[in-house]
Amino acid sequence: MAQTEWLLLLAPVGSIIALGFAAYLAFSIFKMDEGSDKMKEIAEAVRIGARAYLKRQYLGVSIFFAVVFVILLVLALMKHLVIFVPFAFLTGGFFSGLSGFIGMTIATKSSNRTAAAAMKSLNSGLRVAFSSGAVMGLTVVGLGLLDLSIWYYFLDWFYASHPIPIGTDKITAITSTMLCFGMGASCQALFARVGGGIFTKAADVGADLVGKVEAGIPEDDPRNPAVIADNVGDNVGDVAGMGADLYESYVGSIVATSALGVAAGLGVPGVTVPLVMAAVGVVSSIIGTFFVQSKEEAAQSVLLAALRKGVLASSLLVAVISYFLVRATLGIEHIGIYWAVISGLVAGVIIGLCTEYYTSSGFKPARFVAEQSLTGPATVIIGGIAVGMMSTAIPVIVVGVAILASYFLAGGAANFNLGLYGVAISAVGMLSTLGITLATDAYGPVADNAGGNAQMAGLDPEVRKRTDALDALGNTTAATGKGFAIGSAALTALALIAAYRDQVALYGKELDLSLMNPNLLVGLFLGGMLPFLFGSMTMRAVGRAAGKIVVEVRRQFKEIHGLMEGKAKPDYAHCVNIATAAAQKEMVIPSLMAIITPILVGLLVGVEAAAGLLTGATVSGFVLAVMMANSGGAWDNAKKYVEEGHLGGKGSLAHKAAVVGDTVGDPFKDTSGPSLNILIKLMSMVSIVFASFVLSYSLFK
Amino acid sequence: MAQTEWLLLLAPVGSIIALGFAAYLAFSIFKMDEGSDKMKEIAEAVRIGARAYLKRQYLGVSIFFAVVFVILLVLALMKHLVIFVPFAFLTGGFFSGLSGFIGMTIATKSSNRTAAAAMKSLNSGLRVAFSSGAVMGLTVVGLGLLDLSIWYYFLDWFYASHPIPIGTDKITAITSTMLCFGMGASCQALFARVGGGIFTKAADVGADLVGKVEAGIPEDDPRNPAVIADNVGDNVGDVAGMGADLYESYVGSIVATSALGVAAGLGVPGVTVPLVMAAVGVVSSIIGTFFVQSKEEAAQSVLLAALRKGVLASSLLVAVISYFLVRATLGIEHIGIYWAVISGLVAGVIIGLCTEYYTSSGFKPARFVAEQSLTGPATVIIGGIAVGMMSTAIPVIVVGVAILASYFLAGGAANFNLGLYGVAISAVGMLSTLGITLATDAYGPVADNAGGNAQMAGLDPEVRKRTDALDALGNTTAATGKGFAIGSAALTALALIAAYRDQVALYGKELDLSLMNPNLLVGLFLGGMLPFLFGSMTMRAVGRAAGKIVVEVRRQFKEIHGLMEGKAKPDYAHCVNIATAAAQKEMVIPSLMAIITPILVGLLVGVEAAAGLLTGATVSGFVLAVMMANSGGAWDNAKKYVEEGHLGGKGSLAHKAAVVGDTVGDPFKDTSGPSLNILIKLMSMVSIVFASFVLSYSLFK
Repeated sequence: MAQTEWLLLLAPVGSIIALGFAAYLAFSIFKMDEGSDKMKEIAEAVRIGARAYLKRQYLGVSIFFAVVFVILLVLALMKHLVIFVPFAFLTGGFFSGLSGFIGMTIATKSSNRTAAAAMKSLNSGLRVAFSSGAVMGLTVVGLGLLDLSIWYYFLDWFYASHPIPIGTDKITAITSTMLCFGMGASCQALFARVGGGIFTKAADVGADLVGKVEAGIPEDDPRNPAVIADNVGDNVGDVAGMGADLYESYVGSIVATSALGVAAGLGVPGVTVPLVMAAVGVVSSIIGTFFVQSKEEAAQSVLLAALRKGVLASSLLVAVISYFLVRATLGIEHIGIYWAVISGLVAGVIIGLCTEYYTSSGFKPARFVAEQSLTGPATVIIGGIAVGMMSTAIPVIVVGVAILASYFLAGGAANFNLGLYGVAISAVGMLSTLGITLATDAYGPVADNAGGNAQMAGLDPEVRKRTDALDALGNTTAATGKGFAIGSAALTALALIAAYRDQVALYGKELDLSLMNPNLLVGLFLGGMLPFLFGSMTMRAVGRAAGKIVVEVRRQFKEIHGLMEGKAKPDYAHCVNIATAAAQKEMVIPSLMAIITPILVGLLVGVEAAAGLLTGATVSGFVLAVMMANSGGAWDNAKKYVEEGHLGGKGSLAHKAAVVGDTVGDPFKDTSGPSLNILIKLMSMVSIVFASFVLSYSLFK
Repeated sequence: MAQTEWLLLLAPVGSIIALGFAAYLAFSIFKMDEGSDKMKEIAEAVRIGARAYLKRQYLGVSIFFAVVFVILLVLALMKHLVIFVPFAFLTGGFFSGLSGFIGMTIATKSSNRTAAAAMKSLNSGLRVAFSSGAVMGLTVVGLGLLDLSIWYYFLDWFYASHPIPIGTDKITAITSTMLCFGMGASCQALFARVGGGIFTKAADVGADLVGKVEAGIPEDDPRNPAVIADNVGDNVGDVAGMGADLYESYVGSIVATSALGVAAGLGVPGVTVPLVMAAVGVVSSIIGTFFVQSKEEAAQSVLLAALRKGVLASSLLVAVISYFLVRATLGIEHIGIYWAVISGLVAGVIIGLCTEYYTSSGFKPARFVAEQSLTGPATVIIGGIAVGMMSTAIPVIVVGVAILASYFLAGGAANFNLGLYGVAISAVGMLSTLGITLATDAYGPVADNAGGNAQMAGLDPEVRKRTDALDALGNTTAATGKGFAIGSAALTALALIAAYRDQVALYGKELDLSLMNPNLLVGLFLGGMLPFLFGSMTMRAVGRAAGKIVVEVRRQFKEIHGLMEGKAKPDYAHCVNIATAAAQKEMVIPSLMAIITPILVGLLVGVEAAAGLLTGATVSGFVLAVMMANSGGAWDNAKKYVEEGHLGGKGSLAHKAAVVGDTVGDPFKDTSGPSLNILIKLMSMVSIVFASFVLSYSLFK
């Protein structure tokens, strides 16, 4: 199988293609019409605010990374870790942060251009916003592949000339080191998701509560001092946060699969398949972007179909090429691995369709929630929660079927490790089209900002109507992206538990992973509770941060004379600063909890309890995350459905009730819910990295 | 250890004492002042409605029981079950239903008497309502002990003269048969909780939406056609439903412990301890009731302290007597078992205190929720959910500590089965004081109904104020009862998984219960999702049923002339009928799902997946149940706090927002949340009973 050596080169090549195409798209966006001076000015304000936020965020995170780097270095010197782990931790964090930064920069440069394009036609607007999303999607996969390629080739070179750790071979040494990458990316992702999520919802809720509810001015009115902060929030939370998040999922699934491939005795080909499949996904995603086109003034379902066509085209391409890839690298005897990939790919598509069904106002569930608004806010809330809870059934069943199918198709009945490899690679299959799924996802906030830009710049209401149509779609695609992130996390769960077991086994301890082990059961219970605790913390954080914005907006309305009459300008920057400071402060405790809990449980209740903790958190976190994302999406679209003129339309009592649902949904879908998959994976990563340390000092051995 | 033979006689003796004291209390309530004719008339209407509901419910349930009885009989004839199981299924269901029926009869006879007593003083009102609750509590434990005693002595006699099944001994044959009792009690409990829960909340929400919100008449106004249905609901849901629920928990924990005691090689003494400890709990509970006294016009915290004193006194008594019991039956070498009991007892007390903290308006969390009402309904909802989620941490940690403590104190490190026995008996310890904890719980609906009675009969507002004080307390004690039910379910989880494993082992299959088993992991995911799906179904059922009430109340307001002026009487009975029919219809699908899912998963994904399913459902169901109960309690008390005149008081915008929270909390705390522990246990029971059948026909073997 000598051909696998050159095949592996496709990984860096894919990375370069992704980054190159992203750069090409970015420059073609830059060349587009920026709109009027007013539009440029507004976009500039948002851009400055977003930069300021990220600068502060990265500063805080840097300190955290420095501290953890030192801790990891000490652990490495104590021989609890391979010496490369602390450095891999840094690059993982760096590239994850960079993905978010680039995506956000493009997004903030695209909002006014999208608004300007929407002045021409809906399709033009869609193209600009979607291109911006595609830059983000391709940057994430490009940087991910770059990081992986650099480390792979570096370690390959290093171990060629240096002694390989005792009791292992070169490829095992490489993959077990690369497995620990994930922690840096996960940490960065958690901070980005939680901090960004708190910022965006605090600004959004704060702006709405005082502006819309108290002062009675429309959304995105330039007189609202929090309006820029609200737009900044879309970028730092929904773009930068999501980018870091999916970077982590992407890289994490590939390294976990590689490690298991080696453990299954597949050698270098076992590493080649996931890496090259990711590269195949890059090219397929790029081709898929050309399928995204819309006719003029299309209904939401038509727009959605346009995006779906792009995703399906990419999926189909990956499905076809992967067959030859698996055949060429692993041989026809392992063609079951190919079917495992297909399981993941199909599961991803079904989860996407299911999310669409439960959140898009084109279908029954969101309309049901909208109808509940006729009997007031209480029934809207109950309806939305019920829809969200109901929506968990299909994704869980689909993931369950995918796990079993990929396990047995890959040959798990005869060889357990091969089955595990199959399950892990199904997650890679699900995420292989990330370039385009993330594009459909990241385009939402751009459309949202374009709407804000159009409103503030006083453009023709028709433009706003077009951007609103694009934005409504964004709610559904955003929920889909979250479904992918959490679905792949659930698929990766088995791989991560196995990785943890193997890591512990390296230090001479055989894990008793039976449900009858009371320590493990207690770990399961604790793990099942953590997502709820984490959700509570982040929701309350949003509440507190929003409270500060409310106070500030009220102050400005009172103290700045002529503001309401449009004669004086509000102090936008101050609101941005307050939201920034609040988000930075509030993100610390939940994030630290995620990092410390698995270590603490391991030390106090034992390594089996830590394994239980990870599993329990995945079990309840999976369900809770899907529920929160879909409830939030359904509420948001139910509100938009009423605003389109149904059930009494804007200003009716039903509309007021629907707004309550939307506000409750905000932290559900944009703060607490999407952080849960990172919580789960970060805890796994921490457990793996600290396995030797915990084992040495645990009370239960 | 010959003395254990006569000690076991304490179980039927305890049963007789419980039932005797309950009868004494009931007759002393009957002798009390019934109040004015108007009061009698209202109470009579509620009584008739509640009877009508239960009659219809029991009719439907009888058909279900007949069908299942036949199925079980066929399975028994096919040798998949012992022949006694179908009959034990019937008695379990019968006694569970009888507990609910008696409790409800007393409750409906006590509401007007409580109102009449509250005319004299707060303490008199408290005494009547609490006595009514005590009748219920003692009936549940008395009938539970009776059912257990009858079967124990019958099987003991039977196997003395008939051949014992091959490969086992007499006591094992007895306990493994008794283990299957639970299914009848669980089925009855699920129907009672779900049906009653749907009825009570549909009537409540329906009455409020049209009466309070649309027509602007006060709560419990006799002009509201749904007002009697609302009061009936408190009785059929919160009394009859809860009685059946806790009967099931109580009996289930005792039989599971007995079976494990025998498996641990403790023989008859292993059965004696849980049964006699239950009898000790009866006497302690009766003594505890005498500690419940209050001064006049006391604050909520003082009233709460009065109830708490009763519970603590009982707990202390159980703690002391159990020491001698364990020492006498199991000997000093097993004194660790005693400490396991204490672990459960202490865990129960802490869960109770924690529930108080998170739901009582005397503490920060409920006040925090109340303060959120100043910024509107959305923040109330977010606040309540956040509080509920946060409140899951301590109960989960406490249960975790109790599991580990009881396991290791009982000697699990040396003998796994002994450890299991310890965990199981800690649940018996937690539930040993059920006589009094259930009394504090069941007294709430009586106080609530007394308030309705006082309002409708036009008594002095001072009386209503007193019953309101009693009722507010009821919200907290009700949440405590739910905490006990779910906490004991979590403690029993390990025992039930072990019982399932042993049952499967009887048919020659060794379960691979490792987390690395993909089928088991898929079962875990499916199980984790079920409580959410179940919650969604029951919440939507409440919504649909409430919708029917809304339509009917609107119709009566429109069609009955002179109703609003008080000249004509509404047709109360018709509302009761509609709620009854709706509840009966809506309870079928969720209940069937609970019964069919474990069989289906076992058949399609294997017995290991079924074990995973049970565990996953326990993990997420435990957390979700605590969250729903405590969010609901906090919202309800936050509303009451505002109504007491804080933050703007009745009629303010804050009050309106708080009412939204309360309405959302209704199905949370009274329908979906409290059904979850039964869902978990019923699924375990079904799995155990159908183990042999599933094993024979499963696709995965």
